Amino acid sequence: MGKFVVIGERIHCISPTIRKAMEEQDPEPILKRAKEQLDAGATYLDVNIGPAESNGEDLMKWAVQLLQQNFDNVPLSLDTANQKAIEAGISVYNRAKGKPIVNSADAGDRITNVDLAAANDAIVIALCSKAGVPADNDERMVYCQELLERGMEQGMDPEDMWFDPLFLVVKGMQDKQKDILEFIGQLRDMGFNSTGGLSNCSNGMPKEIRPIMDSAMVAMAMQMGLTSAIVNPNDQRLMETIKSCDVIKNETLYADSYLQI
Amino acid sequence: MGKFVVIGERIHCISPTIRKAMEEQDPEPILKRAKEQLDAGATYLDVNIGPAESNGEDLMKWAVQLLQQNFDNVPLSLDTANQKAIEAGISVYNRAKGKPIVNSADAGDRITNVDLAAANDAIVIALCSKAGVPADNDERMVYCQELLERGMEQGMDPEDMWFDPLFLVVKGMQDKQKDILEFIGQLRDMGFNSTGGLSNCSNGMPKEIRPIMDSAMVAMAMQMGLTSAIVNPNDQRLMETIKSCDVIKNETLYADSYLQI
Repeated sequence: MGKFVVIGERIHCISPTIRKAMEEQDPEPILKRAKEQLDAGATYLDVNIGPAESNGEDLMKWAVQLLQQNFDNVPLSLDTANQKAIEAGISVYNRAKGKPIVNSADAGDRITNVDLAAANDAIVIALCSKAGVPADNDERMVYCQELLERGMEQGMDPEDMWFDPLFLVVKGMQDKQKDILEFIGQLRDMGFNSTGGLSNCSNGMPKEIRPIMDSAMVAMAMQMGLTSAIVNPNDQRLMETIKSCDVIKNETLYADSYLQI
Repeated sequence: MGKFVVIGERIHCISPTIRKAMEEQDPEPILKRAKEQLDAGATYLDVNIGPAESNGEDLMKWAVQLLQQNFDNVPLSLDTANQKAIEAGISVYNRAKGKPIVNSADAGDRITNVDLAAANDAIVIALCSKAGVPADNDERMVYCQELLERGMEQGMDPEDMWFDPLFLVVKGMQDKQKDILEFIGQLRDMGFNSTGGLSNCSNGMPKEIRPIMDSAMVAMAMQMGLTSAIVNPNDQRLMETIKSCDVIKNETLYADSYLQI
């Protein structure tokens, strides 16, 4: 499967700093966060502009060009409910370092994002859910198949569908965690790529615990074959864990300096 | 399988402090390390007295009684090449908190330690190796079966045979790590308990890296079903990871204070 793909989640309009920078099209705060994430080892950067109903197309084009021009065509994940904004972003996207990612489709209303990815030769993050939390892995697998079928009908390479098992919060859904890990193993056994918002597992926990819980989860998930995650690459413990698991899985060669690379 | 069993490895005659304390039958250094390990969450304490050819029987009896009297019959793993010393230790061992562990048998010369465990209703750590490093998991499984057969012939409960996959050093045997994890999964699928000297994986690495590598490995191994490990419970990152994996596996109930418990 190759080295784990870290999608940096920190360019997100939920952050007041980033929202303001997006409203004002002020490059500096966005470039700063981009650099921090890339320095820490992110491969992809997620760009979440929110619903962006009025100015989404301009905003996404601006953000894509800003980031790719400043960071050697860094590959991006385009994250908004506004499909036209995703298409606008892709129209100015440079593929030299990797296809754009459409974030995200599900098996419900958002299944049209599979169509969007197919039409634009993009990767799509495909959530194995429809409305709410899947009851079990059988339900997850039904949605996975629906998404897969939709993509393949339109000529997508299954490798470009990165299935998201839907990570759930431990606090309140502790008994579901084993299922999620098991499902990641099922995706691996079928040869699929996978990703997801892994740190959702530690939602609601004291902030000093979150990196500890997320690191345990990412190691267990990587052992089950998770190929990517949408995370904060500036969580040092998490990145150390990801790099160590890549060494253990023999996906990167060990050197005493491997944590610095 | 239940909560992960941590066997504390720090009462070991390889430490000059402990060797001296054993030579002089000086309780304090041994009690100090025992307390540190138990406070950090160890369940079992390993007591390694070395080959102890001359005074092994007296020494092991002394150590067993010292530790069990001071720490409420703490369960112990008796670790020496001197079989008479193990038997002497068991003769004074109190089982209130758990059976003694015989550390260790293998499928070669040390297979007689299975007999010793069977004769004394003890647990045995059963290394799936004979002479040197097994070439692959088929070889590991052959040794596992030989050990299992030996134990069952003598009426052992398979639950009392804790199979050790033989953790190997990443530095130099990086491509073997996946096999070891896979083998742990095979042991789990057969319903067996498993354990081992996990920190061997980070042997020879810079000392600041070792807890990082060991923590990644223990999480991956726990996801594959490892039920125990012989480790340093005073490695804080490692213990945090073990406790977090137990939460994710739903073996202990989450509470915001779970790292302190």
